[in-house]
Amino acid sequence: MSSIWGKNIRISIFGESHGKAIGVTIDGLPSGLLLDMDKIESLMKQRAPGRTPWSTPRKEDDKVDIISGMNKGYTAGTPLTGLIYSNNTKSSDYEKTKNIIRPSHADYTGHIRYKGHNIVSGGGHFSGRLTSPLVFAGAVAMQILAEKGISIEARIYSIGGIADDEINYCREFTSAQIADSNFPTVSEIKKEQMINHIMQCRENKDSAGGVIEIAVNSLPAGIGSPIFDNLESNIASILFAIPAVKGVEFGAGFDIADKKGSEANDEYEIKEGKIVTKTNNNGGILGGISNGMPVFARCAIKPTPSISAKQNSVDIDLMENAELEIKGRHDPCIVPRAIPVAKAAVALAVLDTYLSQAEI
Amino acid sequence: MSSIWGKNIRISIFGESHGKAIGVTIDGLPSGLLLDMDKIESLMKQRAPGRTPWSTPRKEDDKVDIISGMNKGYTAGTPLTGLIYSNNTKSSDYEKTKNIIRPSHADYTGHIRYKGHNIVSGGGHFSGRLTSPLVFAGAVAMQILAEKGISIEARIYSIGGIADDEINYCREFTSAQIADSNFPTVSEIKKEQMINHIMQCRENKDSAGGVIEIAVNSLPAGIGSPIFDNLESNIASILFAIPAVKGVEFGAGFDIADKKGSEANDEYEIKEGKIVTKTNNNGGILGGISNGMPVFARCAIKPTPSISAKQNSVDIDLMENAELEIKGRHDPCIVPRAIPVAKAAVALAVLDTYLSQAEI
Amino acid sequence: MSSIWGKNIRISIFGESHGKAIGVTIDGLPSGLLLDMDKIESLMKQRAPGRTPWSTPRKEDDKVDIISGMNKGYTAGTPLTGLIYSNNTKSSDYEKTKNIIRPSHADYTGHIRYKGHNIVSGGGHFSGRLTSPLVFAGAVAMQILAEKGISIEARIYSIGGIADDEINYCREFTSAQIADSNFPTVSEIKKEQMINHIMQCRENKDSAGGVIEIAVNSLPAGIGSPIFDNLESNIASILFAIPAVKGVEFGAGFDIADKKGSEANDEYEIKEGKIVTKTNNNGGILGGISNGMPVFARCAIKPTPSISAKQNSVDIDLMENAELEIKGRHDPCIVPRAIPVAKAAVALAVLDTYLSQAEI
Amino acid sequence: MSSIWGKNIRISIFGESHGKAIGVTIDGLPSGLLLDMDKIESLMKQRAPGRTPWSTPRKEDDKVDIISGMNKGYTAGTPLTGLIYSNNTKSSDYEKTKNIIRPSHADYTGHIRYKGHNIVSGGGHFSGRLTSPLVFAGAVAMQILAEKGISIEARIYSIGGIADDEINYCREFTSAQIADSNFPTVSEIKKEQMINHIMQCRENKDSAGGVIEIAVNSLPAGIGSPIFDNLESNIASILFAIPAVKGVEFGAGFDIADKKGSEANDEYEIKEGKIVTKTNNNGGILGGISNGMPVFARCAIKPTPSISAKQNSVDIDLMENAELEIKGRHDPCIVPRAIPVAKAAVALAVLDTYLSQAEI
Repeated sequence: MSSIWGKNIRISIFGESHGKAIGVTIDGLPSGLLLDMDKIESLMKQRAPGRTPWSTPRKEDDKVDIISGMNKGYTAGTPLTGLIYSNNTKSSDYEKTKNIIRPSHADYTGHIRYKGHNIVSGGGHFSGRLTSPLVFAGAVAMQILAEKGISIEARIYSIGGIADDEINYCREFTSAQIADSNFPTVSEIKKEQMINHIMQCRENKDSAGGVIEIAVNSLPAGIGSPIFDNLESNIASILFAIPAVKGVEFGAGFDIADKKGSEANDEYEIKEGKIVTKTNNNGGILGGISNGMPVFARCAIKPTPSISAKQNSVDIDLMENAELEIKGRHDPCIVPRAIPVAKAAVALAVLDTYLSQAEI
Repeated sequence: MSSIWGKNIRISIFGESHGKAIGVTIDGLPSGLLLDMDKIESLMKQRAPGRTPWSTPRKEDDKVDIISGMNKGYTAGTPLTGLIYSNNTKSSDYEKTKNIIRPSHADYTGHIRYKGHNIVSGGGHFSGRLTSPLVFAGAVAMQILAEKGISIEARIYSIGGIADDEINYCREFTSAQIADSNFPTVSEIKKEQMINHIMQCRENKDSAGGVIEIAVNSLPAGIGSPIFDNLESNIASILFAIPAVKGVEFGAGFDIADKKGSEANDEYEIKEGKIVTKTNNNGGILGGISNGMPVFARCAIKPTPSISAKQNSVDIDLMENAELEIKGRHDPCIVPRAIPVAKAAVALAVLDTYLSQAEI
Repeated sequence: MSSIWGKNIRISIFGESHGKAIGVTIDGLPSGLLLDMDKIESLMKQRAPGRTPWSTPRKEDDKVDIISGMNKGYTAGTPLTGLIYSNNTKSSDYEKTKNIIRPSHADYTGHIRYKGHNIVSGGGHFSGRLTSPLVFAGAVAMQILAEKGISIEARIYSIGGIADDEINYCREFTSAQIADSNFPTVSEIKKEQMINHIMQCRENKDSAGGVIEIAVNSLPAGIGSPIFDNLESNIASILFAIPAVKGVEFGAGFDIADKKGSEANDEYEIKEGKIVTKTNNNGGILGGISNGMPVFARCAIKPTPSISAKQNSVDIDLMENAELEIKGRHDPCIVPRAIPVAKAAVALAVLDTYLSQAEI
Repeated sequence: MSSIWGKNIRISIFGESHGKAIGVTIDGLPSGLLLDMDKIESLMKQRAPGRTPWSTPRKEDDKVDIISGMNKGYTAGTPLTGLIYSNNTKSSDYEKTKNIIRPSHADYTGHIRYKGHNIVSGGGHFSGRLTSPLVFAGAVAMQILAEKGISIEARIYSIGGIADDEINYCREFTSAQIADSNFPTVSEIKKEQMINHIMQCRENKDSAGGVIEIAVNSLPAGIGSPIFDNLESNIASILFAIPAVKGVEFGAGFDIADKKGSEANDEYEIKEGKIVTKTNNNGGILGGISNGMPVFARCAIKPTPSISAKQNSVDIDLMENAELEIKGRHDPCIVPRAIPVAKAAVALAVLDTYLSQAEI
């Protein structure tokens, strides 16, 4: 099963980059939720290309047409399907080189997996464009979470090795800490440095990667389960569904492995009548279950594989070495546009986990 | 749903650390597989405590009693259930402090999650002991993979910041590269340094964390799917089910985020008539699908939360600050014993993903 | 989860009767299957209304627009989504009486289930029109089965108590035994009697029910599993998803309960080197697994709830008794149009069960 | 996947008839449920053999040993595993004839399905004995339902064509209507006739089948979903998991197919301020969702396939016709002992469906 996710709320994503439409069906939504279409569109716009110097100039509207499951602005409770119609496709750019597999893309693996029958134009079902319906679904999930007081925020943690400023992980991370939702960092200075790095990469026909940090605020303690259905597994399983993600960590993440227990352990104390931890190296999750502290996850985004510089590759039809020059309009750095995608993914994972503890 | 995992092969883990027995039911196994009990026991022994100076002196046999699904040594095809009976439990050590929640353990989150009804003795269902049935299930999975020529290996990548030697990620990682299966590293020198670090931690009533690297050898290209049912999501979802794992990465992992596209991209070439990559920064997985190169995953293991040093905490019955001194017999470093667990987890994920592409 | 079905092949149905479009996403299809669109359309036409005197005069094209998952006529292997756009909706007929709940329809239960937010026009997501995407998915499943030599046939077993002729359940039931695919019976005489009954019901502002019998031909022995994932459970679970189905049985079905063991048991014998049974009271399924004999299932279809005669009901807004006269264009008997739906449902169940035994 | 069932509460059944133990793991239970072991044992006793003249004299204790998930009598919330150890097995009876496949049993289909590796002694995983853990799981489900005021009752609807008295389907069916829980009928006279029929069958080395009727009382309106996850599909999918069930119907069931719409439709009226139906031909379910009327399901149980009379069959090793005389101790009629199994199955289906509508 490739494109269905979730246990309690279930999303089914379909479509190919250059097909007539891509979309998502969300099954298991409560009825009577008033959908705030402005908020949904606002999140989708953050993902849409063509709006900033550091993204591809390719324009896509990414307007969602809800064809089922909505009744006078409210969720009907039955499957909600949103379609995003395609426009502005330039297949020709892709056609020319389609036998020469692009390094670090899914051209080769998709070809083997589907025995040459997969749709390759624009990346087909593997395209980053398929994160657009994911953002839509996540935006809906966020509205349900918001009713419970839970919010999801994210920032650019680093790009090309340039790290944003440290934050206090015992406090909630709020949008007030971010000046620019299109390039969300805490530090203005670091933002400039990151943008400079991206622009330089573009100039050099190269690309940049980075790390995104996502915070879940006000998640009550007790959400998640031991062993398999834990909050970390659920979040990781959907974050790794975002193309280009090569790592996921929580709290201190990989750095915790270098620490000693006495440094890593988050000691408890009572503060204003509530049990809190003095540090948050575990990122708000213990034994797979939220502990009431802010949840922090990070995911590593590899540099955009599509670079304009000449690369070595292979022609899979001729089965011989070949050189490749990728034309087309590509993001020198996908990290800023991946921010709403990561938020959407985490929102869906948190909601699905939360729902597994719903009671009759 | 907490303790069932898998789509094509399904494992259901049950039991508590100090209960009568813990176990696992494996559903979806092919019939007629001759179970090599020696291999299974050998892997389980690597996880069992009490055998090395760097593990807890607590002895557990971890013998599996297969009560169903096996017919004269072969899998019957119907659910295979293995029980591991408990012995050598010292509940009293735990009882004394059970109101004082242990930092970085699941005491508090389990208490909230289950409204005080969870079993706390020995960690209950949250105990690391529950990885024992996981190793059994993984050992069975490995035998099915072995019939396809696929093997799983793992090594200690680092402990306490001391890294093992670099290896060539374009080559398979085999057991021949490891001298000591109880403490698998490439370098003898680094091994000694790591063990010294652990021993020092123990002396200081402290503990050490580390990183495990897992390799999947000879996995054919084409295993996995785009979007949700991708190989990385599947592996990550089960690796995060191992207690103490706080991060999972593939290939260059988080380091890839600092690279440029020109450095990160794995260029293709034809070698001995086969398509290979010149580097393996993507860890053998592109677009969620194996590309025929060795698959490399790493997971970060936090230092054992149970340390003998005095810690600050909270008494949840009295709801007041309290000090905690953890008695009992604990591993100063869980990383070596987590090696077979990580291998088992990856084996199950690879098998489940592989099976999703089975054909009629 | 309401509208996703399947374990190995998964279908997600969405839409409402009078919405912009209804559709289905089929996930888990093999790549490289050449879709025979003529066969698909032919099956869908059998379900479409407006073609025969015994169906509603309402015309619906039921043309499927495949918007993803198809590459030059072949399945791409990624999710296949088919949309069926709406036309010829007459919401006004429904609007007038929408507070008065229609007996034996889902008006009341849908209202309670979705707290008044469900879409009621045309039956919304509960409409029989939603079986149209099911037929599409089933038609695709039939093509995969056909490649294995397995075919699905069905006939009208009875309407209004008028039974079609007995057939030999030890033989395959083939289309050669049916003269009229729009009204498939073995007996021409019984067909006339059944049609007369339907026409009389229509004249009396009434409606008729019936029983459909479905045969699965050439299914090899060994398909299915003991306990839960058995072939009978899988077929029944999807047959009951067809609106109006109130019973499902296999082989001799409910009649077997009246027999003695000596009458009911299907004795074995060897015939032409093959193990066969002398009778087929078990409908080709033993212990939930196919035994190589033709599989026979039957489902009971209740008479169309929409009748023109005046009925007693309740106004749920005023919470008082009310009378109801249903206008609009309704089938006096849905059984003939339900034939392709039942075939599609059984095809999907058989394929999904078959796939669970696929091997790597 | 053969032996795991459920979406919100999940049961995993394992074991073989003559193995060391059979059992079930129940995952997804709420914590803090006080298990009434007397009620559980009482239901299991109704299934246990050896207590009445119409059941096999074979004695089985069917005592459940709960090895996990229970804390001081309360559910812990983590997986609850119950084991039932085997005793009193007489494998020798089975061994002699094991190459000669028993008609209407799963010997042949199991042999093909598992390529000869399945365990055949006592029926292995196909044995009716595997319904014992199902009853245990159902008994736990009933206790959760009981807290919501929902109860499950069942009666023998018919045996060998002898039908129990008609009841009023608009009223709840309660235990007060039944005199003998070991042979639950409304009519004492019909009970005697049914028992006479069974005794006569036994004398003639034959067996009898029958129909069980299950009622769900006080289920609120609104439980279930349209299309696939409807209450009828969920109940049917688990009822067909009971060996020997060949048909499932709701309300008027197959009889509704013979009716006209004007006869079949359940008209609404307001009674004591509540919306009720005047008849209950739909068995309390419309559009797959409960309508607040009592839910009625029936399942057809085929006559015990094991009869002492000589039968024709095939020796699958020699691949030649053979005669078979089944020795051993068998039930002349399994229907009375299947009553608690059917109740357990329905309880699990209702609970699982109910839980899918739980809210956060």
